[in-house]
Amino acid sequence: MVREITAQELDTERFINEKVKEINGAVGDGMAINALSGGVDSSTVTMLGHRALGKRLKTVFIENGLMREGESEQVTGLFRELGVTVEVVDAREEFFAALKGITDPEEKREAITQTFYRNVFGHLVKESGAKHLLQGTILTDVDETVAGIKRQHNVFEQLGIDPEEAFGYRIIEPLVQLRKDGVRKIGKALGLPAAIFERIPFPGPALSARVIGEGTRERIETVRKATVVVERLLKGTGAFQYLAILHEDRVTGIHDGKRDFDQQIEVRCWDSVDARTATPTRLSFEILERVAREIILEVPGIVSVTYNIASKPPSMIEAI
Amino acid sequence: MVREITAQELDTERFINEKVKEINGAVGDGMAINALSGGVDSSTVTMLGHRALGKRLKTVFIENGLMREGESEQVTGLFRELGVTVEVVDAREEFFAALKGITDPEEKREAITQTFYRNVFGHLVKESGAKHLLQGTILTDVDETVAGIKRQHNVFEQLGIDPEEAFGYRIIEPLVQLRKDGVRKIGKALGLPAAIFERIPFPGPALSARVIGEGTRERIETVRKATVVVERLLKGTGAFQYLAILHEDRVTGIHDGKRDFDQQIEVRCWDSVDARTATPTRLSFEILERVAREIILEVPGIVSVTYNIASKPPSMIEAI
Repeated sequence: MVREITAQELDTERFINEKVKEINGAVGDGMAINALSGGVDSSTVTMLGHRALGKRLKTVFIENGLMREGESEQVTGLFRELGVTVEVVDAREEFFAALKGITDPEEKREAITQTFYRNVFGHLVKESGAKHLLQGTILTDVDETVAGIKRQHNVFEQLGIDPEEAFGYRIIEPLVQLRKDGVRKIGKALGLPAAIFERIPFPGPALSARVIGEGTRERIETVRKATVVVERLLKGTGAFQYLAILHEDRVTGIHDGKRDFDQQIEVRCWDSVDARTATPTRLSFEILERVAREIILEVPGIVSVTYNIASKPPSMIEAI
Repeated sequence: MVREITAQELDTERFINEKVKEINGAVGDGMAINALSGGVDSSTVTMLGHRALGKRLKTVFIENGLMREGESEQVTGLFRELGVTVEVVDAREEFFAALKGITDPEEKREAITQTFYRNVFGHLVKESGAKHLLQGTILTDVDETVAGIKRQHNVFEQLGIDPEEAFGYRIIEPLVQLRKDGVRKIGKALGLPAAIFERIPFPGPALSARVIGEGTRERIETVRKATVVVERLLKGTGAFQYLAILHEDRVTGIHDGKRDFDQQIEVRCWDSVDARTATPTRLSFEILERVAREIILEVPGIVSVTYNIASKPPSMIEAI
């Protein structure tokens, strides 16, 4: 069992010093590696890892083809300013090959997990001589995975999986006693800029979690374009999270005066404190209609847009 | 080409007298038959046909298994008060057999058209000795079918189909020069009660047009239950039309504390004058959240509810 450290009781300097010592103890004089997505958790782990290991931590941004528009440039640019070099690893072929033909959400998630940990990291670890992967798992990931509510891609030991046996390297999870609010405190203490904390949550399987059905290059590109519109128009709302989901169902629309069956985007925008419960943000219809209009205008193949009106629970924040 | 009669220029008594004469001329001293759904068009044709033919018009309500909760009782009761006997014909087996395994929206529509006109009516016409089917096709049906925007189940000649050759009987369409507002005037002049005019539009393929994917008994029952909630909560809004659509896509939800993939209902509610263009009704979030909550509570297997925010065009009023 992991002992929780609440944000209230968290002494940031002491926590950082302890974790730096632990990471150093675990990695010894070897190399470690970590993947930065740009989210608060992986950004905090990157800063913590660099504090502990300096150049002995290799930080990579995995370009899996499933990230948002301009995301790799944005994240690597941000960290360059913090003095951290991030290497972009192009793994698009591997991920799209793994996703090919898979429509079941659980299988899709598993294909991404396996590609990420076994293929991409297996390869990087071998190349770099690293024996350890630093990772931003937090307590909520563990709780929800163990409870069967969510299947976080970054939780193994609690499911009885030995990463060293499964993937050939060890995983270090320095944030696993914290929840999101605790991680934010640590991230701030480590000098992360506001831009990192203002990023809305984004799932591990990235945009493949935002398409229902097969995650082809074309479908990912469709939901990526819709995500640009949703993030542009909803970033000013102060909502906890907002997202676009590409549905597999086809609905009727009119194209050039003719009836046609085409695709639908579902928009979700959530009010929430900690993601455990959430309600749809009460957006104005001026905004809702503008979101629909601009998605239809800017995203080829979309003829219909809906807005989620169910709460969590029994809904979840993400669709798959 | 059909000559349009606008509601403005329509002289109801003269129109009714002319149509009574035409129907009498066509049917002679034989029998005719018509199907009453309870919508404005088929209700008006029923009154007009009875004015012309009296007992020589047999009016049936086809129980196709795709109607809304309590619909056959409600419609036959209404007409009983008007002195018109409506026979309920149980054709549920035929329709569900025809829909079995069909997921393509066009094929589904065609299966219903064929079952309705060829099997069910073919049989009824033979039994009754009728040679004519009276039908409430209006000009908008013809326009939209010819333009390729919609495929109305009740438009044949304009598509080059000879109903006599295809089905073995003739189709009489006394309302084909009118649009909805003209039909309302005629219906009122023929003594139809307000309850008929207050009914919101409902598609020819009934609830099978409200499920994306296969129209099984179970899925039709699911969307029927959701329709009860939507009609109960939205009938006071004064909206032009409101509907529930069962999606085929599965989304994540929590059932008894565990993650599960279950079904989604899309709610549409439209502001429109003539259905040619329409915008989503700006419902309050109190109502939207209540609709979602009650659907999830009352309809087994539903874990997520969305609200349409796109306009027609390019969306259509119905999903398929």
